[in-house]
Amino acid sequence: MRILVINPNTTASMTHKIGAAARAVAAPGTAIEAVNPDFGPVSIEGYFDEAFCVPGLLAEMGKAPDRDAYIIACFDDTGLDAARCRVAAPVIGIGEAAFHMASLIAGTFSVVTTLSRSVPAIKHNLVKYGLASRCSGVRASEVPVLDLEKPGSNARDKISAEIRNALKYDGAEAIVLGCAGMADLALALSREHGVPVVDGAAAAVKLCEGLVSLGLKTSRIGGYAPPRGKSYAGMFSVFAPGQ
Amino acid sequence: MRILVINPNTTASMTHKIGAAARAVAAPGTAIEAVNPDFGPVSIEGYFDEAFCVPGLLAEMGKAPDRDAYIIACFDDTGLDAARCRVAAPVIGIGEAAFHMASLIAGTFSVVTTLSRSVPAIKHNLVKYGLASRCSGVRASEVPVLDLEKPGSNARDKISAEIRNALKYDGAEAIVLGCAGMADLALALSREHGVPVVDGAAAAVKLCEGLVSLGLKTSRIGGYAPPRGKSYAGMFSVFAPGQ
Amino acid sequence: MRILVINPNTTASMTHKIGAAARAVAAPGTAIEAVNPDFGPVSIEGYFDEAFCVPGLLAEMGKAPDRDAYIIACFDDTGLDAARCRVAAPVIGIGEAAFHMASLIAGTFSVVTTLSRSVPAIKHNLVKYGLASRCSGVRASEVPVLDLEKPGSNARDKISAEIRNALKYDGAEAIVLGCAGMADLALALSREHGVPVVDGAAAAVKLCEGLVSLGLKTSRIGGYAPPRGKSYAGMFSVFAPGQ
Amino acid sequence: MRILVINPNTTASMTHKIGAAARAVAAPGTAIEAVNPDFGPVSIEGYFDEAFCVPGLLAEMGKAPDRDAYIIACFDDTGLDAARCRVAAPVIGIGEAAFHMASLIAGTFSVVTTLSRSVPAIKHNLVKYGLASRCSGVRASEVPVLDLEKPGSNARDKISAEIRNALKYDGAEAIVLGCAGMADLALALSREHGVPVVDGAAAAVKLCEGLVSLGLKTSRIGGYAPPRGKSYAGMFSVFAPGQ
Amino acid sequence: MRILVINPNTTASMTHKIGAAARAVAAPGTAIEAVNPDFGPVSIEGYFDEAFCVPGLLAEMGKAPDRDAYIIACFDDTGLDAARCRVAAPVIGIGEAAFHMASLIAGTFSVVTTLSRSVPAIKHNLVKYGLASRCSGVRASEVPVLDLEKPGSNARDKISAEIRNALKYDGAEAIVLGCAGMADLALALSREHGVPVVDGAAAAVKLCEGLVSLGLKTSRIGGYAPPRGKSYAGMFSVFAPGQ
Amino acid sequence: MRILVINPNTTASMTHKIGAAARAVAAPGTAIEAVNPDFGPVSIEGYFDEAFCVPGLLAEMGKAPDRDAYIIACFDDTGLDAARCRVAAPVIGIGEAAFHMASLIAGTFSVVTTLSRSVPAIKHNLVKYGLASRCSGVRASEVPVLDLEKPGSNARDKISAEIRNALKYDGAEAIVLGCAGMADLALALSREHGVPVVDGAAAAVKLCEGLVSLGLKTSRIGGYAPPRGKSYAGMFSVFAPGQ
Repeated sequence: MRILVINPNTTASMTHKIGAAARAVAAPGTAIEAVNPDFGPVSIEGYFDEAFCVPGLLAEMGKAPDRDAYIIACFDDTGLDAARCRVAAPVIGIGEAAFHMASLIAGTFSVVTTLSRSVPAIKHNLVKYGLASRCSGVRASEVPVLDLEKPGSNARDKISAEIRNALKYDGAEAIVLGCAGMADLALALSREHGVPVVDGAAAAVKLCEGLVSLGLKTSRIGGYAPPRGKSYAGMFSVFAPGQ
Repeated sequence: MRILVINPNTTASMTHKIGAAARAVAAPGTAIEAVNPDFGPVSIEGYFDEAFCVPGLLAEMGKAPDRDAYIIACFDDTGLDAARCRVAAPVIGIGEAAFHMASLIAGTFSVVTTLSRSVPAIKHNLVKYGLASRCSGVRASEVPVLDLEKPGSNARDKISAEIRNALKYDGAEAIVLGCAGMADLALALSREHGVPVVDGAAAAVKLCEGLVSLGLKTSRIGGYAPPRGKSYAGMFSVFAPGQ
Repeated sequence: MRILVINPNTTASMTHKIGAAARAVAAPGTAIEAVNPDFGPVSIEGYFDEAFCVPGLLAEMGKAPDRDAYIIACFDDTGLDAARCRVAAPVIGIGEAAFHMASLIAGTFSVVTTLSRSVPAIKHNLVKYGLASRCSGVRASEVPVLDLEKPGSNARDKISAEIRNALKYDGAEAIVLGCAGMADLALALSREHGVPVVDGAAAAVKLCEGLVSLGLKTSRIGGYAPPRGKSYAGMFSVFAPGQ
Repeated sequence: MRILVINPNTTASMTHKIGAAARAVAAPGTAIEAVNPDFGPVSIEGYFDEAFCVPGLLAEMGKAPDRDAYIIACFDDTGLDAARCRVAAPVIGIGEAAFHMASLIAGTFSVVTTLSRSVPAIKHNLVKYGLASRCSGVRASEVPVLDLEKPGSNARDKISAEIRNALKYDGAEAIVLGCAGMADLALALSREHGVPVVDGAAAAVKLCEGLVSLGLKTSRIGGYAPPRGKSYAGMFSVFAPGQ
Repeated sequence: MRILVINPNTTASMTHKIGAAARAVAAPGTAIEAVNPDFGPVSIEGYFDEAFCVPGLLAEMGKAPDRDAYIIACFDDTGLDAARCRVAAPVIGIGEAAFHMASLIAGTFSVVTTLSRSVPAIKHNLVKYGLASRCSGVRASEVPVLDLEKPGSNARDKISAEIRNALKYDGAEAIVLGCAGMADLALALSREHGVPVVDGAAAAVKLCEGLVSLGLKTSRIGGYAPPRGKSYAGMFSVFAPGQ
Repeated sequence: MRILVINPNTTASMTHKIGAAARAVAAPGTAIEAVNPDFGPVSIEGYFDEAFCVPGLLAEMGKAPDRDAYIIACFDDTGLDAARCRVAAPVIGIGEAAFHMASLIAGTFSVVTTLSRSVPAIKHNLVKYGLASRCSGVRASEVPVLDLEKPGSNARDKISAEIRNALKYDGAEAIVLGCAGMADLALALSREHGVPVVDGAAAAVKLCEGLVSLGLKTSRIGGYAPPRGKSYAGMFSVFAPGQ
């Protein structure tokens, strides 16, 4: 089974980290490729950044059209709906992956993410997916995405502090880490706080493996019906010549 | 007052029609410009098309950064959240404009749109805006967007038939037309069915005029905070050299 | 265009202030008349006061049956549903006007109103209108309505303090002032706190102008169908001889 | 125990029927008085009629201020919130009484009421009370209220037909009769359809008896706090001289 | 009228207390029997305990199959759905009884219960019943159920402290006591805090009396349809030989 | 990895079929054991049957306390909350498994189950899990559970007919089979209707494998905290001597 993990931003070190996290949990027969577009912002912090990632993301899918499943490795699930229209194979966002997995092991979960400006997009997704009632809070650690890559940024402590607040004030029974760049912190934070801490990238790998193994693919009727009757070649040529 | 109306698809005849509809309702001192990007799909029918419109849409805003208000003239409100991050002036989507206006003159409204594949995106918006409880149904007339431009397409009859169904089966008290390309049908359909029929483009003009007149602008805190600390010049250069 | 603004309480100084606020934002061709019934309480603070305002409010509408639009200038939107049954022209409550306008410029808003006893009625309206999910909180400043008219009442400071709390604790991105008598404070409070502050009376004027300009009137089917088959003359004679 | 049943419309024959229905289920020690105001519409069919009933209703309460409980015998629960501010004793609307009782004996219930124009008010109440999720439908029999008093109106057949539809199409497990004037039909319709059929007037009597027996009264804090610091004598003098 | 009150746990002293509370409010003609199964946990604190109570509860109903109504005297309403399938007579849980009664005398109520682990089950019930929107909070006093029986446990003070918090922070207008073992505290706590305090056991008695008096029984269609076509004798024989 | 699949009813042929379905999708290193209690009903059709299954289900878990994960193979997710309190390992119900998996490949899904009497329990679960907004309908095929085991029962045709209705009338984009006994029909029905058809038993196996592989276990705080401070030995001895 081949899974393409797409980091929709252009920071290669983050792509590398996410790929490693995905490989660490992949089943023996699962091959993980982690890529990112050349085009787009260096990190995704809010709606504006999201907008510029989607064409590049779709172009990356077009370069590798025969994978068994695709993972969108931004916690906002940037471009998820559009991506599902493009291929027949399953496409999973790491945000939704984390929400669903957390819902299977806890009555309620809180999300700890990066900046305040990202909170509304996460909340909208929770409402859209139906899982808002399972979420006891979305908390910003005020750690910018790229600080997660910097050793001296104190990122882990800030995240840990918000986990403590979530457990004390929200009534959270589990924690979801709200950024792909936090993948390497999940295990240690779970041990520190004594509750399940869910990383979306790892969760998405297992959900993809499950769906592929069951032969389940995205429905081709309704909102995810494949585009029909118009050409996108001119558009793709801007991002990915040849598609 | 200057309002920029952006049709996010690339069909100039539709831009022309929407511009005319906007001008027809604009107040004496309001100047309407209607534009569309060069880059993007010829029509927006579902999530995939939406994804390709947003960068071009944002580029058009960048070409005209000093307008008093902006209107996104696609019923899906494509790129609305990202656009609000870009400028301080108000940005209104024609979908939300229609939903809010209809809510002021009727207890419930039904939406009649083009294709089934567009229904889920409209429903998601209604939930996100909070107005899903006011909507008695979203109905597809199965008229493709560009057929609205073709004289012999029988589009009006199909739309009228779904209005009849909405009034009979949904308990709708008013109708919202779910595509920018239907702007010219509102008056006749209202007379035919004896209920208010709301066109989003016209509604958006009046809401923009109102907001500008009151000095109200998009909040700069939370989800619509302006992007900070990273450069988008490289990205815009693809779509709009010089921004 | 002629808009009748009805203050449903009997305090003429408040009617005067609301009328001034409405005129200040009205378009050149819009004539604003501000009236209040002779019959009813001096202020509206909760459900009991509301009950006594509605007949007088409807009688005022009956004295001026040919206006282009009507505004109910109590933040509880007292008698709004009944008023919509009485005339074909649009009727807007200042509460709903503020909620809709705030929803167009911010993801979430908090309401700052007068007394705690008014909070439940405002929350019920938000649920009824569908916009409860957009509201991050309804806060009472504990300033009685008529204290807003008194220079030494410290009202502005108390309201400002609750705005500060709303921004800090609710996650509000904008503020709605929850009383018609606060109309004169909106601009200064917006500057002080750096966020949009919406006054319902001003918002309602622009929404009325918009609806009238679009030719949109209240639906005559369903809940707002005009009363039929019974006489109300005897009832009106109590409040407004001759109707 | 003395319970005052107030029919908020002015049709004495209906007051008589409701009083009889209440007495038929009252416990041995319960005295039922049924009254109606002199002022107001002959029947309540929608928002407009509701508005004129509330002052008269409150005046009737003022004439009998020492009762142990009060019942508002209109299915719209007209004036319920205001009435709860006026007295310390419990006040029950027959609509809410029916909804709560039906929720105790069935997973879901449908309401069968009189005219379509009354449906939105009933739905708003269900949402406000929290019980909308228990209601599988609100159906209009299109029987005007006063036709329920007329032998040859075929009212019962029309109501029975809608009950049949509710059981077949809504998934209703029980039926609520949506008008005080249907009180005499409940038993026969229950036998005919083999499901519980709840009449609100009877339900309200038992709920009042229960609350009084438990010493439970309306909370005096929050939305139902008693009015304070202003005089209502001038207003009541119009409806009920001496209060 | 004969009402069987079943305490689903096996602590006889609690059964005795609940029986006394029920008898204290029962109408003259109502006979209260309070029983508990021999089989099951000594108290019900969370989902695990609930699971073991239901067969014994149903067996107790089978020993007394001809009662006019049944009360399940655990605040979690343990086994309520199953019990409603077993008999035609009404079955009321004390949790739902308290929620419905509180909803008739206050706009919002908070629940004060025993342990944190019981909070999720109570919240689930509120959502299921539809009354979650009426509940301003579910607070744990961290008093174990059986400590309510112990004089020196300081239980009352802890409960009173949470009531104070509910009134101050939740916006509660009334209080619901969230455990059958708190029945004897309601009156004193109501006096202390000046708000209605609802005990579910007492509330359930009055609701049963009301339903029986009205001839209303649980619907036999849908979810509460009686079990059909299979034998349960073998199962009951484990708990209640002879059924 | 060892997964214990527990069919909570006592029909061994169904246990066998479910075990085969689970093994068919299990990963190479996953050992599936399928068991059922001796005690309980032959099938689970509604709330009453559910009640009798839970103790036997918990006893089966107690006989095999060291498994890596547990699956409750009844579509009602009978006893799921209690089971999660008993063990630290993940416990998945096949209903929730199907709902979550379907939500990852379609915007909306409809459930096709056995009898009408099971519909309310399924709907309650959907609300509780948060996924009700994703479900476009729950339809009963009126096929009793054990008829699924009978060759001549015409079960498949009836189920297929309801799938057709769900696609035509509900707007379903995928189908969930609402009974463990339908596991063998999923593939053929998916091919027949051209949409994803999700079987919960298979879905649960993959979700268990995923959770175990990620080291995620049920949270031990809040509603799923392990029972403490009381003995259950006496209770288990009835069902499973020695535990």
